[in-house]
Amino acid sequence: MSVEDIIKDMAINAKKASRVLRNASREQKDSALMKIAEGLKSNISEIMEENGKDLEFAKKKGLTGAMIDRLTLNTERINAMAEGLMELVSLPDPVGEVTGMWKRPNGLLVGRKRIPLGVIGFIYESRPNVTVDAAGLCLKSGNAVILKGGSEAINSNLALSRIIMSALKECNLPEKTVQVVPTTDRKAVKGLLELEDYIDLIIPRGGEGLIRFVVENSRIPVLKHYKGVCHIFVDESTDMDKALDICYNAKVQRPGVCNAMETLLVHEGIAKDFLPEIINRFRSAGVEIRGCPRTLEIIPDAKPAQESDWYEEYLDLILSVKVVSSIDDAMEHIDKYGSNHTEAIITENYSNARRFLDEVDSSVVLVNASTRFNDGNQLGLGAEIGISTSKLHAFGPMGLEELTTTKFIVYGDGQVRE
Amino acid sequence: MSVEDIIKDMAINAKKASRVLRNASREQKDSALMKIAEGLKSNISEIMEENGKDLEFAKKKGLTGAMIDRLTLNTERINAMAEGLMELVSLPDPVGEVTGMWKRPNGLLVGRKRIPLGVIGFIYESRPNVTVDAAGLCLKSGNAVILKGGSEAINSNLALSRIIMSALKECNLPEKTVQVVPTTDRKAVKGLLELEDYIDLIIPRGGEGLIRFVVENSRIPVLKHYKGVCHIFVDESTDMDKALDICYNAKVQRPGVCNAMETLLVHEGIAKDFLPEIINRFRSAGVEIRGCPRTLEIIPDAKPAQESDWYEEYLDLILSVKVVSSIDDAMEHIDKYGSNHTEAIITENYSNARRFLDEVDSSVVLVNASTRFNDGNQLGLGAEIGISTSKLHAFGPMGLEELTTTKFIVYGDGQVRE
Repeated sequence: MSVEDIIKDMAINAKKASRVLRNASREQKDSALMKIAEGLKSNISEIMEENGKDLEFAKKKGLTGAMIDRLTLNTERINAMAEGLMELVSLPDPVGEVTGMWKRPNGLLVGRKRIPLGVIGFIYESRPNVTVDAAGLCLKSGNAVILKGGSEAINSNLALSRIIMSALKECNLPEKTVQVVPTTDRKAVKGLLELEDYIDLIIPRGGEGLIRFVVENSRIPVLKHYKGVCHIFVDESTDMDKALDICYNAKVQRPGVCNAMETLLVHEGIAKDFLPEIINRFRSAGVEIRGCPRTLEIIPDAKPAQESDWYEEYLDLILSVKVVSSIDDAMEHIDKYGSNHTEAIITENYSNARRFLDEVDSSVVLVNASTRFNDGNQLGLGAEIGISTSKLHAFGPMGLEELTTTKFIVYGDGQVRE
Repeated sequence: MSVEDIIKDMAINAKKASRVLRNASREQKDSALMKIAEGLKSNISEIMEENGKDLEFAKKKGLTGAMIDRLTLNTERINAMAEGLMELVSLPDPVGEVTGMWKRPNGLLVGRKRIPLGVIGFIYESRPNVTVDAAGLCLKSGNAVILKGGSEAINSNLALSRIIMSALKECNLPEKTVQVVPTTDRKAVKGLLELEDYIDLIIPRGGEGLIRFVVENSRIPVLKHYKGVCHIFVDESTDMDKALDICYNAKVQRPGVCNAMETLLVHEGIAKDFLPEIINRFRSAGVEIRGCPRTLEIIPDAKPAQESDWYEEYLDLILSVKVVSSIDDAMEHIDKYGSNHTEAIITENYSNARRFLDEVDSSVVLVNASTRFNDGNQLGLGAEIGISTSKLHAFGPMGLEELTTTKFIVYGDGQVRE
C-alpha cells in the first residue's frame, strides 16, 4: 500500500470511530482515560525500551542535547503523562451542553448544542508526551484523532499508541479513535492535508516552517500560531515594583516558549528611572539587550537593535527594548511588529488600561500581569491543545471546548415556511 | 499595476480601515448603514443605468433568462436592499460583549470579549444585491470587506460601492471599509486567497466549482458549504397531516435553494399509506419522483433512482425517495449520502425524536418542521451572510456574531507566573 493509501485508510477508520465517539457518555470516555493512565504506569519498561531505540538513533544522527532531552522518556515523565490524563478525567465533558435556546414567533424552539468536531489531524514535532496529551484531549472532547509525530519519536509514539488502543478496546470504544501514523515518510503529512472529506481540523505544532507548510497545503481548516512576538508596555504612571517583577518574569522565567516577552516598550517619562534597574536585573540573569537609539542614550553599552529585531521571536535570553513617547506609539509598534499573540500593559492609569484592553488586537491582552499567563491551564480552561493566533474558531489558548462546535437543534410541531 | 498588486493594495487598505472599524461605536456604524440606505434610494436611476450596461452585455453573451433575472436591479429591488440595511440598524452590535468572566485562584480576573474578525474577503457570483448585504453585515460587525463579485455584475457592483464609500466618508469612517474589486480578471481571486497577512476570513458563495477552487487555493480560513443534500425522515408513528405539509413545503416552496429537501426517507411501516398521498401532491406540483425498489413497489410509475441520485443536490423539482426499515437505516443513509447541512425527522415518537436530534451530524437538525428553516433570519440570528457545513468557527447559518471572535482580557495586579 502506498503512503497515501495508508493515510486514507486511517482517515476512513477515524471517521467511523468518530461516529461512536460523538455519542459516547462522559463515563465511557473517563474510564478509557483512566485505563490509559494505568496502562502507561504498568508498561513503563516497555515504553522506555522503545524510547531507547529512538534515542540511540537520535544520537547516531547527532541531534543536539536539547533535542535529545525533549525526546527522552523516563519514569517521572511517563507518570506525569498519566497524571495529565487523570486531570482530564476531573474536567467536565463539553459535549452535549445546550449553550442557548430561544422561541421563535412561529413557536419553533431553537437551540444550540455542543458537539465534537469529528476527526482531528494532529501534526507535531519530537516530544512524545504530546502524543498522550493530544490523545487525551481529543478523546475527552469526543473526537477521533490521527497523530503524526516527529520521525525521531516514531518508536516511542507507536509504543504509546499500543497502550492507548488496548485501553480503548477494554472500554468498548473503537481502537481507531487514536491512531499514530506508522511511517516517517514526509508524504504522510501532505496526504493527511488533502483528506477534507474525513478530517475536520488540522492542528500543527512545531517550528514556523512546518506550520507554513501545513497552511499552504491544507484543504482542511487549520488552527495554528506562527510565532509569539509578545510585548510589554511599561506606562508612565506605573508601580515600579510590579513592573520590575512582571517584566523579569515574562522574559526570564522560561525564555524558550511562545508567551515569553520578546520586546519591552517603555514610556519616555519613566525610562530614565526604570530602564537602568530592569536592565541590571536582566543582565544578572544573562539577558542580552538590543536597544533603540533612545534606549542607548540611557544604557550606552547595550547593543543597537536592527529593524529586523522588532520582528524577532528570540525564544532565548535576548530582549529588544524601545523607548516610546506615548501609549499610541506603543500600540502602533505592537500593531506593526506584533504577532497577535500576547501583549501586556503595566500601568496605574485607568484610561490607558482600558484603551490597551480595547484596542490591542491580540489573543490575550493583560493589565499588570505577566505575558506568561497565556496558557489554557493558567487562564482556567483546564487543559490546552495549543494556542491560536488566527481569529477563526479560536483566538488564544484552545482547551476542550475549542475541540467542539455547536449544531442547531429545532423542536417544531408542524411548522412550514411561508 | 498588475492585478496582484491592485489586490494587495486593497488588502493593505482594508487592514488599515479595520483598525478604525474595530473600535467604532454602534452609533457610528448604524449612521453609516442609514446613510448607505438613503444613498441607494436617492440614486436609483444611476444604479439602474450602470446595471443596464451589465444587462446589455449579459444579453450579448447569451446568458439564460434566470441568470438575467438574478442580475436585474429595479426600484423594488433597490428599495429592498435599503430595507435590509435598516434591519441591520435595528440589530444589536455584537462587538464588545464580554461573554464570560471568572477569577483565578491567584486573583487574575479573566474574561472573553467579542471583537471583529478584521478583514473579510467575500467572493460571490452574479446577484448584485449580495454586494449591499455583505457590506452591511461586515460594517455592522466592525469588519472591513473586500468584495469580489461576478464579472457580469461589475458595473452594478461598482456603482453600489461608490454609494457605499461616499456614505462611509460622510460618517467619518474609512472609505476603504468596503471595497469592490474593480477588475473581472480571474487572477484577482487567486491573489486574494494568498494574502493571509491582511485577510482573516474568506467566504465564497456560488457554485460548487467556485467553492472548491477557493478551498484548494486559500491560505486563509474559509467558511463555506459545498451543497445541501437535505433529508426528511418520515417515521412510522407520524401525524400524517404534519408530515404531508412539511414534506411538501420542504420540496416545493422554493426548490432552487440549499435548504430544500432532496431525499425523502419513509419508514416501511407507514410507506403504503403515506407515499401515495404525498407523491400525488408532489406530482400535482410538477415534482419528478425517483424511487428505490421498495418505493417502486408502491408507486410503480415512478422513475427508478440510481446510486448517484442519493448524492444529488437537484436544486429543482426532482425528489429521490427511499423506503427504510428503521430510524437506524435512515440515519445510516444520511451519514453516507448527506452533506451535514439540514435534516428533519417527522415523528410522534419521543425516543426517536431525541435520538435523531442527538445523533444526526448536521448543522441544523429539526423535529416536525421544514428543512427550509435553516436560515439565519428564520432561526432568529437576525441576518445571515451564508451557511457553513464545515464545523470550524460556525456550523449552520452565520449571522453577525459569526463575523466576530473573542479575545481574552486579563485584569491583574502584579501577578507573575511561578
